[in-house]
Amino acid sequence: MSELSPTLQFAMDLIRRPSVTPDDADCQQMMISRLQPLGFEVEQMRFGEVDNLWLRRGSEGPLFAFAGHTDVVPTGSLEQWHSNPFQPEIHDGMLFGRGAADMKGSLAAFVTACERFVQRHPDHKGSIALLITADEEGPAINGTRKVVEALQQRGETIDWCLVGEPSSTASLGDVVKNGRRGSLGADLWIKGIQGHVAYPHLAQNPIHQALPFLAELAATEWDQGNAFFPPTSFQISNIQSGTGATNVIPGEAHVMFNFRFSTETSAPELQARVEAMLERHGVDHEIEWRLFGEPFLTSRGELVDATVAAIRDVTGTDTELSTSGGTSDGRFIAPTGAQVVELGPCNATIHKVNECVKASDLDLLSQVYQNILQRLLTDTP
Amino acid sequence: MSELSPTLQFAMDLIRRPSVTPDDADCQQMMISRLQPLGFEVEQMRFGEVDNLWLRRGSEGPLFAFAGHTDVVPTGSLEQWHSNPFQPEIHDGMLFGRGAADMKGSLAAFVTACERFVQRHPDHKGSIALLITADEEGPAINGTRKVVEALQQRGETIDWCLVGEPSSTASLGDVVKNGRRGSLGADLWIKGIQGHVAYPHLAQNPIHQALPFLAELAATEWDQGNAFFPPTSFQISNIQSGTGATNVIPGEAHVMFNFRFSTETSAPELQARVEAMLERHGVDHEIEWRLFGEPFLTSRGELVDATVAAIRDVTGTDTELSTSGGTSDGRFIAPTGAQVVELGPCNATIHKVNECVKASDLDLLSQVYQNILQRLLTDTP
Repeated sequence: MSELSPTLQFAMDLIRRPSVTPDDADCQQMMISRLQPLGFEVEQMRFGEVDNLWLRRGSEGPLFAFAGHTDVVPTGSLEQWHSNPFQPEIHDGMLFGRGAADMKGSLAAFVTACERFVQRHPDHKGSIALLITADEEGPAINGTRKVVEALQQRGETIDWCLVGEPSSTASLGDVVKNGRRGSLGADLWIKGIQGHVAYPHLAQNPIHQALPFLAELAATEWDQGNAFFPPTSFQISNIQSGTGATNVIPGEAHVMFNFRFSTETSAPELQARVEAMLERHGVDHEIEWRLFGEPFLTSRGELVDATVAAIRDVTGTDTELSTSGGTSDGRFIAPTGAQVVELGPCNATIHKVNECVKASDLDLLSQVYQNILQRLLTDTP
Repeated sequence: MSELSPTLQFAMDLIRRPSVTPDDADCQQMMISRLQPLGFEVEQMRFGEVDNLWLRRGSEGPLFAFAGHTDVVPTGSLEQWHSNPFQPEIHDGMLFGRGAADMKGSLAAFVTACERFVQRHPDHKGSIALLITADEEGPAINGTRKVVEALQQRGETIDWCLVGEPSSTASLGDVVKNGRRGSLGADLWIKGIQGHVAYPHLAQNPIHQALPFLAELAATEWDQGNAFFPPTSFQISNIQSGTGATNVIPGEAHVMFNFRFSTETSAPELQARVEAMLERHGVDHEIEWRLFGEPFLTSRGELVDATVAAIRDVTGTDTELSTSGGTSDGRFIAPTGAQVVELGPCNATIHKVNECVKASDLDLLSQVYQNILQRLLTDTP
């Protein structure tokens, strides 16, 4: 290995900190040390046991913010790692380590992109910010959600937000997430009457009662999606009923299910449709709903256009806009009215053993980030 | 309370022995003491921890056997009993105590019926026997099943068997069981692929896969029963799937179900139909079957005719022949070729707290049993 690029070097320094959720392990301090000298104002926000960081350069609008997290998921089985997950190594052009892809590589690219951009454009338009949490992989209660609340309370509004989540699939920048599906869950209890299997007329089997309803639920097409969203999907994650005895009809069944839904429907509409179905099947039940996140979408506009153009400039790739996959902290930022996109390295190995990223992709990513800043915060794109 | 009848007195003496499965608590010895002096030969058969008893008077055929058990189910919550379950009490004409109905009342009626019958017909035709176990309410492995095997091995064949299980519903003798349904159970594991609910295309939900199959299974009419059997019934007793997490698609689902089946079908036919249904729905699965008991039926013939006529003689009641309800030890005796009926007191309180039986019914029951012996084992009915 010849000399390491600044982005790669900083990514490896961050990976050496074992910042397993919700431990920041001083990663945020390392970012402060790099950006404070460039004129970024530092605001550390600790909520509960979670360290959060708000860095801002400039006081005018429009405000562009990079958003990311220093925490990583646990390593999983160490025996299955070919190297120490917190001792980054480069083999065959790949950087290995926990967080290499999700998302310390992106954090390093944020920092070096800001460094080069500020050096070239010390008097850029508007403001640049970084919103960094250590609670994205955990319960996500004392992280981005709380920082956004604090900003809103004092009237500080993000116009454009780029989340560094690993959005790419086969090559850097091939996919940008410009929205996410909503997530709606429910706990359903179906009531029956316990009894002996030999006397079914004296009992009421809650499983039998639920089956036609559940079969219809699982077979239903909720919508067909749209240009930006795949169709709403429905999954039963848990079903539990029975005493364990083979000759007892159970008295209750418990079902947990989850919707990932598009903007073609809504949480209230899904709830109403499910409850009408329960009613129609005459299922004696109780149900508790939980809305984990509303769907959001950032249509074509300054941020999406700048992101797509920057990727083409740097990599030559035609980007696909997508809203697939799980939730991200974008769900907390989008409701403030900000345009939000997610762009980061390839996600094939995230949350797995031997997490890795193509080393040269981090340099490209840093260039793309810089190019986006230039398009949005200068007059000379 | 005036003087107690011999049947009631003996029933109360048996109830005082706390013979909770598989403990006989010397009940069989009490029966031996009463019947040995009348010419019954005594054979005690202990298998494992279970005491069994074979009493026989006479060496010729045909052989009539009373079958029953001295063990009782546990008391349940003592706080809910109005009296001590092992201190029999009579209130308002009802005898209270654990086993009053299931089936120490019947055991007492067996003994007093034999006593009066042998006194009047010391030279009766054929033989009278009693097959008594202390393992009917338990696993039923070392009880009647083993005694029947021992008898078969030495070529001793029961022609007519009356099981003293409490068959009556509203009044003594209103129902006689002349058969029982079969019992067939299965453990079914449905195979899927675990994954994240946000990426259903990478997983395969075993619950979703199973639902159309299970809904069809629960809605299927297996047969319409016949003159002696109600339709075959199907119940899912247990279903378990899921990690507990709301966002994980489970990798497997486990279902337990049970058939109570009539003679219009068979265990192999039910298995074949279920497996064809699994095949048709393309359910990736493993299944393990357990046959708990074959169905049996004793049609009209000497034993049923004698039983029906004896009930009409003693009580004036027109008996209904039925095959409903759970399994009994009759399932072990019927396959030897014996005619088998079940006749005992009312079953409303069996296995419950405050188990009781109408005191005068035990005297009537003893008279019915004696009348049956007279019809089958003498020339002067």
